Formats: sequence, structure tokens, C-alpha cells
Amino acid sequence: MRQIGRGQLLLEFGVRRAQGTGANAGARAALIGGADYTSNVGISRVLGYPPQGTHAHSMVQVFMALGMGELEAFRAYADVYPDDTLLLVDTIDTLESGIPNAITVFEELRRKGHEPVGVRLDSGDLAYLSIQAARMLNEAGFPDVKIVLSNNLDELVIWQILTQIRDEAPRWGVDPDALINRLAYGVGTRLITSWGEPALGGVYKLVAVCDDGTWLPAIKISESAEKTPNPGHKFAWRVYDRRGHATADLLTTEDEDPREGTEPLILRHPSDPSKVRTLSREDIAEIEPLLVEILHDGELVVDLPTIEEMRARREEDVARLDPGVKRLINPHIYHVSLSDALWRVKQSLIRRFEGAE
Amino acid sequence: MRQIGRGQLLLEFGVRRAQGTGANAGARAALIGGADYTSNVGISRVLGYPPQGTHAHSMVQVFMALGMGELEAFRAYADVYPDDTLLLVDTIDTLESGIPNAITVFEELRRKGHEPVGVRLDSGDLAYLSIQAARMLNEAGFPDVKIVLSNNLDELVIWQILTQIRDEAPRWGVDPDALINRLAYGVGTRLITSWGEPALGGVYKLVAVCDDGTWLPAIKISESAEKTPNPGHKFAWRVYDRRGHATADLLTTEDEDPREGTEPLILRHPSDPSKVRTLSREDIAEIEPLLVEILHDGELVVDLPTIEEMRARREEDVARLDPGVKRLINPHIYHVSLSDALWRVKQSLIRRFEGAE
Repeated sequence: MRQIGRGQLLLEFGVRRAQGTGANAGARAALIGGADYTSNVGISRVLGYPPQGTHAHSMVQVFMALGMGELEAFRAYADVYPDDTLLLVDTIDTLESGIPNAITVFEELRRKGHEPVGVRLDSGDLAYLSIQAARMLNEAGFPDVKIVLSNNLDELVIWQILTQIRDEAPRWGVDPDALINRLAYGVGTRLITSWGEPALGGVYKLVAVCDDGTWLPAIKISESAEKTPNPGHKFAWRVYDRRGHATADLLTTEDEDPREGTEPLILRHPSDPSKVRTLSREDIAEIEPLLVEILHDGELVVDLPTIEEMRARREEDVARLDPGVKRLINPHIYHVSLSDALWRVKQSLIRRFEGAE
Repeated sequence: MRQIGRGQLLLEFGVRRAQGTGANAGARAALIGGADYTSNVGISRVLGYPPQGTHAHSMVQVFMALGMGELEAFRAYADVYPDDTLLLVDTIDTLESGIPNAITVFEELRRKGHEPVGVRLDSGDLAYLSIQAARMLNEAGFPDVKIVLSNNLDELVIWQILTQIRDEAPRWGVDPDALINRLAYGVGTRLITSWGEPALGGVYKLVAVCDDGTWLPAIKISESAEKTPNPGHKFAWRVYDRRGHATADLLTTEDEDPREGTEPLILRHPSDPSKVRTLSREDIAEIEPLLVEILHDGELVVDLPTIEEMRARREEDVARLDPGVKRLINPHIYHVSLSDALWRVKQSLIRRFEGAE
């Protein structure tokens, strides 16, 4: 969502959709993984981040039920938050009521010396409505206020909205790039529930057993070869090519160091013996060790990074991926390979137990 | 899963796939909704239920890594749990190793006066393997031990397995009904994450505002009519037909009682004015009030039901649904309708605010 959203403001809105306190872990992960802020007030406080969100429909509904209207609701909100006025404009009708009322209140704010923050669209055709909202706000002299979009957004929906804006905004006299630059995204359900893949398909399996001080590799043989785990204590490495792009991750046995030696690096597919890739040393710019010891004998042995440091690390790592593996549709598969030595340990264990009966 | 599984033992295995403590809420819901037991030890203890599960692959792997084999692992397990021996048979090879070793240990148990519980299949073609496992266990004199299936099960996979067993078991000399009766299902990922619909699409909206002691209905008008909430304080009813089947749920205003009167009952679609259903009093066997007051002024005013009572209630309620709405594929839609009076309140509020600008 971060990638497809062109770097615009991304807000995590999913607290109500998560499973219990999973909302907090999910919001923290979102902040590391690409969201700028979360509407989850509790975890924001714990992490020392300001939460961000908007008022709810109910704020406008209360004014309506009491015989007043949306305009009075917006005005009351702006009175309390004159420098943070971001108005949800779809309680009655976005273009007929919400945007005109928001503009009225924005004009009143400006006369009092304040600048409004923006509007939020939460239903309907978000591409069409954002073009129309931009057109009306531009004409009223508010070309810079944000237009926050929400309502079942995910990376594909954001991509579709941006494409539609590029195609259609010009004929409404709206500059598509300027509009896209003022957009922000509030993403809830499909971020916090990881909608496209709601459970991590990984399992953990025993890979080694300590017998009186000696570690022995262990294996579980699956009917499908790709599900047979890789045995023994291992080490993980990332191999970068001459362009600085990550080209493969490599699992080795614990005592190998693929940075040493001058012979070509052999990368084996974890289960298919016919798939072997060889990288000459000239093709390799760097081999980065990926495993970091965090606990040693139960003691924390690193300074835990801050959220900001983790965000920076995520940005660096993602920037070093090839664009082909970052495509939304039909991406290249990023390979995780085994060293020849690890492959041989695995095969010998499989042979030992397959013949054992 | 309960329905399609023909009432056989259903175990909730999802704790590792849930979001944090959502695992506990999910396991409790599963116990109410159809699972017999959960492998979640913590919530089982809290609820006073025995947890149920099997040993892990790692138990067998340890024996293998230490130079022994699956048979020794099974034997050690049976020594510790002679009356609860349920063996996971796919660590090496289900039919070549797991089942023969399990039979050896089952025979040893029986000689010592114990009866084994069963085997668990966790990979491969579960329909084929369960037929072969049944055949081998039958031939060895264990026609009654359970065959527990697991590995990304859901209602469709269970349905497919049962269909395949009915088609294929006879040609292996296995009675399909006897096999199906000894099956049990361990369901993890796709139960605890509600895989088919990983987030509840519902929202809560303000429906009434108290103005100095008087409740006023509130509304939020959506661009799509079906998303416009139903305003005001309401009451919910379930209408049963003469066959004892639930035929519709009905939302009324708070002060209506649809059980009173002799005129036909009018059921309105929540958003489509053209859809009106009329039920004559002769067609109605019972109208059940669905709302129960649980908290009054912050005080608990009911005896909370036990899990057993909730299970019994679920069974009764599901039994009173028409088979057509319980179909896995293309079910009938069960209708939730509005009374004519509630429909008129909603329409008048929509008219009031749509014309308000």
C-alpha cells in the first residue's frame, strides 16, 4: 500500500477489525511496514506516536437528530479544533451537502486566521468523488487541503483509484498529479486482517536435537518435497549483485561462511534437485549476514531499535529489492536457496529415514 | 464444518494462527459454535473443558535424530499414555512407516490390556490415506480406532473428502459409512481466522440521541441504500412457520409487538421499497422475541448461560433453520425485514435530510 500510494500519507484505521489485542501488534507492524500513523490511540501512546484519525459519522448524526444540520456539526468541530479541522463529508451526501458545508466552514476558519486540514471521503466512487471534491475545493480557494480516502481500501483499490484519477481528472479541469499529491489513505480491514492472506502459512518444526552436548540434525519428511524442513542449525545470508540489488537469500550450515573463498557460489533450490544456480564472484557485490543474536543465555545482547530505525531499515531493504519482485501482479519470485553443504545434509537425512523401514 | 462433518468429533487446533489473545475468544466461540474440544490448553482450563490434541512431529523427530526410529517414539508415547494413545503417523511416510508402526504399538497395548484411541493424518491426500489407513487398521483388528484428519481443513475440504471416500472406499473393501463414522477433524487456520471472510463486515452507527429525556432517531445516509442504517430504538423478532422453521427475522420499532393483532404481518426489505412480503396469521406458528436484557443500569440482570447451554441453544436454533439456507453452495438468503412502521420512520428521516440542503 505504501509503494502503490506514491508515498502519500497512509493511516492505519483497523483497530475495530482485529482479533483482540492483535490490533496493537498489527498497528505497530503497520507503523514499521509503511503506515505514517494509526488511529489506535492506545498503541500510539505506548509507542510515543501521535494518533491520527477523523471524527465519526455519529458526531454529525447527533446534530441532525437534534434538529440542527451537518453545517452546524462541522462548525462546532472547527470551533474546538481550529488548526486540526479534517471533516468527514459523507454523512448525508458528499457532493450535495458534505463538501459545500466543509467549504463554508473552511472559509470561516480562514477568516479567523486558521487553515483547514482536509476532508475525508468514506463511501461511494472514491476516484470520481475525489476529483469532484478537488474541483470544488480548488474553485473555493483550498487547493492544498488533504483529501483522505477510506472504505475497504487495499493496494489494488488504491492502484485503481490512482489510475482512474489519471485518466479522468483532466476532463474536469483537475490536475491529476496535484490531486494525487494531496490524497491520503485510511486503511482498516484489509491491512489489520491481512485480507489477501489472513494467516501466515509457516510452521515451526524441530531441526536439531542436543544429545549430551552434541547437536544432531532432525528432519520431518513430508509427502510433498517442498514441505520437508531444512535440517540442522543454519545461518542466513543475503546476496547482492553489482547493481546493489538483492538477488537471493541463502541458507547455509552454521559453520559455513559464503563470503570466504573464490569459487562460484552454488545456490540450490530447497527441494528440486534440478534447479541449481551458480553465481560467479564477479557477479556478487556483497553477502550480508542476516542473523543477529538478540538473546544470549536469556540475556538481551543488542540495543533494540526504535520504530524510526526499523522504518528506515525497512525502507533501505525494500529499496534494494529488484522492481520485478515488487510488482503487484505476477511478481518475480525472490529465491531463498540452500548451500550445497546444507543440501547434502538434507538429502542424506531423507535417504537415511526413507530407507529405514 | 459441524454440519458437513456429519456430527463426528471436531477439534479446534488454531491457537498458533490467531492474532494474540484472539485465539482464546476464537476457541471459545468454536466450542459454542460446533467444535467438541480445543487444543488451546489455556482457554480449556478457564472454561473447565479438557483440551484435546495429539503429540507433535517433533516427538518422533527427536527419536529419529538420536538414532532410534518412529516405532520407538510411538512405543515410548504409549508407555506414558496407555489409555490415550493417538499417534501422528506422517513424520516419515504415512502408509510405509506410520500406520505399520502404529499397528505394532496398538497390538502391544492390547496385549497389556489397553485399547488404542487412534491415528492422525496431517498431510497428503487425506481421502486416499484415510481409506488405506482404515483398510490396514481393519485387517490388523482395529476397526474402531479413530482416524483424525488435519491440514488446512475447512467445510469444503471436509465435504470433498467425504464425497471421495463414498466413491472410492468400496473398491478397497472399506465400508464408507463405517470409515466416515470413525473420522474426526482437527481444524486450525481456516476456523480461527474465519478464512472465507476474515473480518466481520458490520459497522456500528449511531441510531438514537437522547435530548433531555426524549430519544430521537438518528440516521446516516449512505450512497448505497443498503448501507443506510435503520434508525431508532428497535426490537428484533424471529418468525416461525407452521413447519417450525424460522422464515424471517423482523426488526420493529421499540413499542411494536407483532404478536398482537390479527392482520397479516408485513415484512419490508430494509432498502428496496418494491420488496414487500405479507404473512397471514395462519402461516405463522410463533413469533419469538430475540432481544434479552443483559445489563440494566450497569447491573447484570440475567444468569449467564454455561457453554453447554449455549451449545444446546445453537443446536436448537440451527435445527429450526430451513435446509435451503444451510446449503454450502448457493444457499437461500435468510431475510431480515423491517416492519411497516420502522420502514416509515426510516423513509421520513431520509426524506428530511436529503431535502435539507
